Parts: sequence; C-alpha cells; structure tokens
Amino acid sequence: MDSEIITVGDELVTGHTLDTNSALIARRLTDIGFTVRYKTSVGDSLADMEEAFRLALRRTRVVIVTGGLGPTDDDITKKAIVRVFKRNLIFHEEVLEDIRARYANRGLEMPAISQNQALLPQGARIFPNKLGSAVGICIAEEGRVFVALPGVPAEAEQILDDEVVPYLRGLRSGQVLKVVKLRTTGIVETKLSAMIALGLKMEGGVKLAYLPSYSGVDLRIIAADDGDEEADRKAQALIRHLEATCGRYIYGRDNDTLESVTGQLLRDNDKTLAVAESCTGGELGMRITSVPGSSAYFLGGVVAYSNDIKTQQLRVDPQLIEEHGAVSEECADAMVTGCRSLFQSDYALSVTGIAGPDGGSDDKPVGTTYIGLASAHATYARVFTFGSHREVNRTRAVYAAIELLRREILDIK
Amino acid sequence: MDSEIITVGDELVTGHTLDTNSALIARRLTDIGFTVRYKTSVGDSLADMEEAFRLALRRTRVVIVTGGLGPTDDDITKKAIVRVFKRNLIFHEEVLEDIRARYANRGLEMPAISQNQALLPQGARIFPNKLGSAVGICIAEEGRVFVALPGVPAEAEQILDDEVVPYLRGLRSGQVLKVVKLRTTGIVETKLSAMIALGLKMEGGVKLAYLPSYSGVDLRIIAADDGDEEADRKAQALIRHLEATCGRYIYGRDNDTLESVTGQLLRDNDKTLAVAESCTGGELGMRITSVPGSSAYFLGGVVAYSNDIKTQQLRVDPQLIEEHGAVSEECADAMVTGCRSLFQSDYALSVTGIAGPDGGSDDKPVGTTYIGLASAHATYARVFTFGSHREVNRTRAVYAAIELLRREILDIK
Repeated sequence: MDSEIITVGDELVTGHTLDTNSALIARRLTDIGFTVRYKTSVGDSLADMEEAFRLALRRTRVVIVTGGLGPTDDDITKKAIVRVFKRNLIFHEEVLEDIRARYANRGLEMPAISQNQALLPQGARIFPNKLGSAVGICIAEEGRVFVALPGVPAEAEQILDDEVVPYLRGLRSGQVLKVVKLRTTGIVETKLSAMIALGLKMEGGVKLAYLPSYSGVDLRIIAADDGDEEADRKAQALIRHLEATCGRYIYGRDNDTLESVTGQLLRDNDKTLAVAESCTGGELGMRITSVPGSSAYFLGGVVAYSNDIKTQQLRVDPQLIEEHGAVSEECADAMVTGCRSLFQSDYALSVTGIAGPDGGSDDKPVGTTYIGLASAHATYARVFTFGSHREVNRTRAVYAAIELLRREILDIK
Repeated sequence: MDSEIITVGDELVTGHTLDTNSALIARRLTDIGFTVRYKTSVGDSLADMEEAFRLALRRTRVVIVTGGLGPTDDDITKKAIVRVFKRNLIFHEEVLEDIRARYANRGLEMPAISQNQALLPQGARIFPNKLGSAVGICIAEEGRVFVALPGVPAEAEQILDDEVVPYLRGLRSGQVLKVVKLRTTGIVETKLSAMIALGLKMEGGVKLAYLPSYSGVDLRIIAADDGDEEADRKAQALIRHLEATCGRYIYGRDNDTLESVTGQLLRDNDKTLAVAESCTGGELGMRITSVPGSSAYFLGGVVAYSNDIKTQQLRVDPQLIEEHGAVSEECADAMVTGCRSLFQSDYALSVTGIAGPDGGSDDKPVGTTYIGLASAHATYARVFTFGSHREVNRTRAVYAAIELLRREILDIK
C-alpha cells in the first residue's frame, strides 16, 4: 500500500530545524511493508497545507502528517483537516480531563489555552499521547487513511509505535518486505557495482541500491513477497551473491559502524589501541570514542600537529622529517612506532597528510595521506590519495585508518 | 520569489538516510530572500519524480532538486528532466575531460560508466562540481528556473555556494535585502531573547530570527527596503541594539566560527595552544584544526582517555584521581597544567566529563563536565552541566572550552 508523509512547520521549510520525524515514520512504514512514495514539508500556511493534504490523499492511500497540533495560533493543522474533510471540531471532555490530570500530577494548573487541545474533528479516531497534550488523530474515508501526529519527536514516536503501526498493520494486505543493509568500505561505488554485476541474477520483487557516504558505500537489499519466508529466502540469496563477490569489503550490517565493529574486535581479542594524529587533528580519536564503552580498549592518543611534538613526544627523528618530510611513509611509520611504545598499546595507528586547501606540491598534492599501523607482529604505512576538500579528506583518512586496523585484526590482505 | 526543494532517492523515502541537503538549501534560499513553500522527497521512481517536478514547476518559480545524478542505473534524475522539459541529452566532451583528469590526478583510470556523467540536457547551464563528477544542471524556461545538484552533501554545498546562490541573486528583482547573522555562544535562547527585548524597537521590513545550534544561538537580521542604503541603515540600527544588549555573547558574524575567531585571536597575539582531552576523545583538537592554517598556533594535544595516560603523560597525581575522581575540578586543573608544561604552549585547555550514556552518579550525573584553562597568568577549571546525549555533550564541551579561551584572551569576565 502506498503512502505519503507530510511534515508541517515554518522551521522545516526555512531549514532551521532538521526534519527527523519523516525519516522515522518512513522507516516504520517500510518495515511493515508500506511504500512511501513522497515526503513533503510545508510551512504554516493554511492554503499550502490544504493543497498538500488534498494532493497526498489523491495520489496515495495512507497519509501521515506531523506538526501543527499545538494549542497556539500558529498551529493550524486541525484547521486544514476541517477544510479538507468538511467536518466540524467537537469538544472531547475526556481528552481535556487527561490533560488536566497531567498538569495536576506535576503540581501545576492547566493553562486555559489547553482547552484547544480537546477540540477534535468529528468522527475521528483518537490515538492517546502518553507524553504530551496533543493527541493523534485518524480519519478513514473513501478508502483513504489520514493520520495527524504532534511534531515533538518523542511524542510522534510514542503514538506511532503504540497506536499507528498496530492500526496500519491491521489494514495491510499483501506483501511482506525484508530490508537489509550491508555496509562496505575501502572501495568506490563504480568498482563495487562492476564486481557485483558478475553473475548477478535478480529475482522478481528484489531491489539493490548503492548508498555512498564518506565512510564507504552501503548496499541496501529490499526483497518483497507475499510470504515472510519467501521474502527472506530472496533477500538471503542476494546477500550470498554479495558476500561471494565483494565480501572482503563488507564490514557490517544495518546499524553497525566501522568504529563499533572494529571496537568490538578489539574487545573480543582483549587488545588495546592508541593513535597518533597529525592532519586529522583528533578526529580519529573522536570517531573511535564515539562508541559508548570504548574506554575498554582505547587508551588515548597524541595530536602531533607541529613537527616539534612529533619529535618530542613520538620520538620521530628530526633528520627523518628533514629528509622525507612530515607527510611521508617514513614519518607515518616512525609516528606509529613511537605511539605504540609511548602508550604501551597492542595496536597503534598514525595519520599524516596534506588535508588542504594549501600545502600541496606536484609530488604530494593536497589529499596525499599516509596511514601507519603497528602491532606486535608488524609495522607498516600505506599511502592514500583523497581529494581537495579539507573536511572530506580528514574524514576519509579517519575511516581508512580504522579499516586498516580491522583488516589487520582479521588478517584480510 | 517562491521556491520548492525536491530531494531524490529511495534511501530518503524509506527513512534510511536523513535528508540534510534540503535544510541547507532552504537556509541559503531564505538568506537571499526567497520563500521556500514546499520541500518534497521522492523515491527513485521515474513516474513519481516526473510528477513531483511538474507539480513544483507549476506551483513555484524556482525548483531545486538534489540527488540521482550519479552514473549508475538507479540514478534517473536526468531521465525525468528530459521527460519534463522535452529535451535530449547531449554529450559534453569538456565535462568528460574534467572527470578523466580528476581520476588521472589520483593515479586512477576512469571507469567506462563515468561517460554517463557527460550526458546533459540540451541547452542547460552547467555548474561545475569541484569535488565530484556530477555537475549541476540549470534550465530556465517560461519564467521558471530548475536546478539539479548531486546528492553528496559536500558537493551539493559547494555548487550551491559557488554557483547557484550567485546565479539566483542575479534573478531577484524588487526589494533589496540585507541579511546579517550575529553569532552568539554561552547563553540560551530564552535568556538571550529576554535581554534583547529590553527597549527593542523593530522598524517596518526588519525581521529578527533566533537560530539555536549546539555551538550557540545565531541571530539572523533581515532588513528589506527599495534602496540599498536604506536597507543597510535599518540592519545597522538593529545590530547596534543587539550589540548594546548582548554584545558580550557575540563572537562573530556570518561565516565566522568560534574556532576561526579564536584562532585568529591566537594568531594576532602570536600565542600557541595545546589541549588535553578525556571525554571528547579528540573532538576539541579536531574542531580547532578544522580551520585552515591552524598549524600557526595549534601545537597539538593529548587524548588521555585512560587514567594511566593522564598520570603518565600529563603528570596528574594518581592520588588526586583516587581522591577526587578523573571527572573533577582538581583533575581538569592538573590535566591543563600538565598539558601546558608538556607542550610548552602559551595556552592550554583540558576537558574531562561524563559524556554518557553510562557512568553518571547522583553527585555527578551524565553531562557533568569540567573544563580547565592554563595561561601564563592563571590556571582554573569550570564545571558545566550538559544533557544526556553522548554526542551532543561532547560537542557542547568542545565549544564551551573554545569559548573559555576566547574570553580569557579578550579578558571578558
């Protein structure tokens, strides 16, 4: 069944608030087998909202709206609903009682304006809100379902999960969707697609999408079928093909991140890690410690931004820097050796590169980055050539470093 | 002039990728005086895209699309453009040469599939892409402007700022808009607005907006008038009021960042900086070094994630940690003292806190963070209480630390 999500509010169309509600609703709808065909954001204009609601009801069967259900003057979603469905607002004593009780529980008196929250479209199904005063509204008419939820993300999520999803499941007929995301890194989209194309047979109802980001390319598999088992079988068949053709680049699934997966490997092997960073300025440490509990394996790092610090703290020979430059395989190697010895860690990583915009040469253009790795068994450095964008180069260097470690631990050549 | 933003991709309508492009574009359009009436996301379906493009061209004058410009089969934005505008795709040799050169610079051969990137709608204006292979496309027809940009955020942003915004500015007729953004930090929105309200008189055509983020609250001033001079006068009058009521929280304007402004202060005073980080894991160093040229004043840092490293490298007395804990004023003080002495820097900053989700106590709940500062004149630490969200706590700690330094240098109490 196809659907459209509409989010309401001036703060969304001016770009000052990031719309996270529509992504959440889309995931829930996709999970239960609905297709989201459009997502629309519209400002606090009655005419624009009315047009958006009518259009959505014309082109899809399920419409979910968030925002504009508050008690103040700029909350006009209910006004637009009344116009589109030609229904009156009816006062609901039991809804007002709930709101009054909520205030009383907090030792507060209910503001008079809250009475607006008990005015709801005639004949609407009401979805209770456990966290706030704006209840969810559901109108089913002429084969169409229209749901309005409050804009506060936690309230929208609660009503969605407790009320809307069970309600919509009941309506669903037809297909089950199986969605799996395989996460790859260290390979560009074009090469990945060429590898996967070899011997690829796509069954009916199966889709494969490439989703690139700076940390790698995700492969999203969607398999649709009437039965749960058959949808699962189709998804697994494609996953097997992907693992056979490009398995060495796949580091995880769904909510895994490169830093969480690599952190788990360190934890499982009871190993520790330290880092020495130059051009990334701390971003490598930041990414690694973005994983809660990373203190179990991450000891710390040195941000050796100046050459003096490389020399003094990481014991890089000044003559080596003189001879080969601070951005060199030799320096990355010396930095990582010094780092492992300073922190007494099992593994160490180092990064030194030219992030840009300045500092490049013909020999070593902006984007040239050396990443070093040291372990009990080996010490080596690899060169990478990224692009011209400072922030992007730094982020790519961070992920390339973590991937180098993941491969070292798993012994992937 | 009114506008609509359309973002394209299955990953957006399934909610698996958060749409940040449309918020960025909306801010840029709002800044130059355009009104965004709708934002729409649509999946990789040719029919749905075509319908969305046609509708947007009917209801607004400027349409900006991102996504679906890549070389693979699921990138079909150009196909939809060809249908809507009834134009052929023309091969552009110079675009292909650019792409080939980009690969050559990285020592790679261009994949054959990249040829698709040089096929562009007849008569379209081409906006160069400095970071990738998908150029921007602009078609002006019957009083409507249609722009298509790549979906990769950094690429979309570069083309938007370098090409699209200047182009759209040129189209605007009528009123002159003066837009200035004053950037504040260290004060919450509600307090800021109460301070500003005192004695505030708003002239006609002047708007003031509060734009909060984790680094602070921006004040956006828009002054509209028929003449350039008069618009400027109105904007300046409001700016004077803002500087008089809350000037001590204003650190910069427009594209200034807290890290660039503070870096400039260090540079102007010929001073150096080093950092010692615990809970932020490297993010403080990363932010400081996000400014090109920061090597002029930033020496480096220690990420002392484990207590052993705090003791060994920063010379924090183990007994002090035993007695007061690693998250304490005493420890922040000792860390920053050790850091300044280790790096021989003019200034040093330290951060130690409980980022969460675990590790909090009744005494020191999650979000409790101590920030230390050391200079030739003084050494002290301040406590901050942030919230419960790990990433947000870390980012807020980073900006609080940089702001502490800015105030120290400028002697703002």
